[in-house]
Amino acid sequence: MAISDKVQTGALPLGFVWGAVKAGIKASGNLDVAVAVAPKGANAAAMFTRNQVVAAPVIVGRRHLEATGGRVSALLVNAGNANCATGEAGIKACIETCRAAGETFQCIFDEVFPSSTGIIGVPLPAEKILAALPKVVTELGATPAHAEAFATAIMTTDTKMKVARAVVDVDGAEVRIFGVAKGAGMIHPQLVAADAPKHATMLVYLFTDLVAEAAELSALLGPSVERSFNSISIDGDTSTNDTVLLLASGGSGIKLDERVGEAFGNALKLVCGSLAHQIVDDGEGVGHVVTLEIRGAETEADAKTVAKSIAHSPLCKTAWSSADPNWGRLLAAAGYSGVKFDPANVNVWIGTQAVFENGGRAALFDKDAAHQIMLAREYTITLDLGMGSAGCTFLTCDLTEEYVRINADYST
Amino acid sequence: MAISDKVQTGALPLGFVWGAVKAGIKASGNLDVAVAVAPKGANAAAMFTRNQVVAAPVIVGRRHLEATGGRVSALLVNAGNANCATGEAGIKACIETCRAAGETFQCIFDEVFPSSTGIIGVPLPAEKILAALPKVVTELGATPAHAEAFATAIMTTDTKMKVARAVVDVDGAEVRIFGVAKGAGMIHPQLVAADAPKHATMLVYLFTDLVAEAAELSALLGPSVERSFNSISIDGDTSTNDTVLLLASGGSGIKLDERVGEAFGNALKLVCGSLAHQIVDDGEGVGHVVTLEIRGAETEADAKTVAKSIAHSPLCKTAWSSADPNWGRLLAAAGYSGVKFDPANVNVWIGTQAVFENGGRAALFDKDAAHQIMLAREYTITLDLGMGSAGCTFLTCDLTEEYVRINADYST
Repeated sequence: MAISDKVQTGALPLGFVWGAVKAGIKASGNLDVAVAVAPKGANAAAMFTRNQVVAAPVIVGRRHLEATGGRVSALLVNAGNANCATGEAGIKACIETCRAAGETFQCIFDEVFPSSTGIIGVPLPAEKILAALPKVVTELGATPAHAEAFATAIMTTDTKMKVARAVVDVDGAEVRIFGVAKGAGMIHPQLVAADAPKHATMLVYLFTDLVAEAAELSALLGPSVERSFNSISIDGDTSTNDTVLLLASGGSGIKLDERVGEAFGNALKLVCGSLAHQIVDDGEGVGHVVTLEIRGAETEADAKTVAKSIAHSPLCKTAWSSADPNWGRLLAAAGYSGVKFDPANVNVWIGTQAVFENGGRAALFDKDAAHQIMLAREYTITLDLGMGSAGCTFLTCDLTEEYVRINADYST
Repeated sequence: MAISDKVQTGALPLGFVWGAVKAGIKASGNLDVAVAVAPKGANAAAMFTRNQVVAAPVIVGRRHLEATGGRVSALLVNAGNANCATGEAGIKACIETCRAAGETFQCIFDEVFPSSTGIIGVPLPAEKILAALPKVVTELGATPAHAEAFATAIMTTDTKMKVARAVVDVDGAEVRIFGVAKGAGMIHPQLVAADAPKHATMLVYLFTDLVAEAAELSALLGPSVERSFNSISIDGDTSTNDTVLLLASGGSGIKLDERVGEAFGNALKLVCGSLAHQIVDDGEGVGHVVTLEIRGAETEADAKTVAKSIAHSPLCKTAWSSADPNWGRLLAAAGYSGVKFDPANVNVWIGTQAVFENGGRAALFDKDAAHQIMLAREYTITLDLGMGSAGCTFLTCDLTEEYVRINADYST
């Protein structure tokens, strides 16, 4: 049994078809309605945003998974409108599109899983989705081109489609995973299981042909999400629509057991890790991808709190944008995180360059060398808190004038 | 007994002299060492940042107040270098400057209160301060020009000096308050009393000629700070040096009693409120000052949590920069604050324009009217959470390309 670690290779999982059309929701006129169908159905596990304000499709999707016990036959995604903060009318519009999709793709209404992404607070133009559904039927297929059309249609401010694949070899047979994601802004996912308090507009769909029950999928999904999507932030804004959905068609005929489970779990982490990285790398206005390695914390939660405090500090993020080794800002952000530590025991490195030790600037600190390291597109900043042996790895990015331009762009 | 509500008028408090010189710490060559002396001494109360990483002058200042029981004769401030994350050497440098100031201004070493603001992590050039001290002596005086030199010297990225005055009339005699502040970035003060866990680079000095004990001053200071400096944020970065110091010279001869206390407390709030407003108004790159009125919360703490979540959301702040009434971002930020509420019961207004009600866009929402309101330099956004009767008022600002330019400016 072997796991492919080349996440961009391998065939697509069996038991799914994908497709997309232009419904006129995006002002650009690009592909904006994406559909995936599992003709024989799929078992499903999902995680949603922890935001108190959630979009209609999150409410309806959660309801559908509860009603069916985790069964999905069709996935209906629109981009260009989040259908969030749209009140009862938004819920009705979402249900209407699910009902029509059920008829179109010949499954029961509850087995349609809806997603939306785009602007908040504008009524969903359900009629455009209804009009588009018959056209989708002729666009469905199982080729890479079909899967890529799906991946392209769900994009909003993304500049690239985000896909990842992995293959688990089980005694010569294959279990395949194909992951698709979108998201470039409002990215600080805080995903929780579907039955926990709700909240997230990152959308992630993970398709596999493994044979597994909904509860088994749920157990696999949590750990993969915690160290990937729940460990990234572009701007600290947790969306109202964030959704990660894992669908297992069973098309491989290979059943989940302990032996398969471990390999599959690892492959799923690779796919989620790749997609999470692609999201940050394509973040709005991003010039630098920064990995925060927090070590020496008392707990992993403490480490994550420190990482987030740095990842959300405008002063740290703007310094990264100009490759400025102004490490005092790192210390300050860690210091106001609320996590206890003694600065005298803290060590900080930018790449391999020691910058802080014994409560002050490192003896061998070389500002120019640190600046050179920070000129790279990607680098790592390591903080050892000197308190314990727990840690975390958190992925984030710089804050640039381009980010401000993108998000201040006001079109009447 | 009457309080002047014209905070920029009234004479300076008796019992203090102010002055400033150019010591060569600021690269610009501007005034950078500021001194205030109370020749007969002053009673003092202070609040410091809650950051775990604190500058040497915060450590030394706290130590001095403890040692003297809240007694200050001289205030020694430098701008251009924060003397933070400078280890034991930083503490020694700070003590050295206090010792020299004690000799220069003829007071005991412990009665010198030090402050620093500027870059973190660079050794303090104590020798420049030592060399400047003799020159300060000839610059000291009690005129408005002297006080303004003090206010100017403590500036870093500030574009304007920040001063406020108030007068309390007590049976025909006057108690005067003069406040000075600096701060334009790394502004999200979280001040706590000197004896609580530490943390702040906003610097605020409040001079009065009231007769009052240190403990009495401390009781007066807390409430004034909580609703002024602790209720503002420019960028959410809580500094390592934030300090608010209240000094009472007793020069008016008017003793604090219940009758005087209430009027004085109100006057102090006016001064702190004015300085807090001036800080946000002069925030780095600020185009719009936004007052967040949070109502209908279960507790004031809940209201403040919601306000801070919105005040620190890059998506809300960038929308404000272009007067974009994208209220969905307000809802999303409130939603991920962690405070419980039901969106169906939430009401949101931009100025007087209703934007959100009954879980969706307000019936009378007029996007252009909202945009017009947001074109003003200052306006109010009101959120009623529909949960209770508590609330708060929080002052913040937009996030602009100029902010990014200022903070990404990397000079080798």
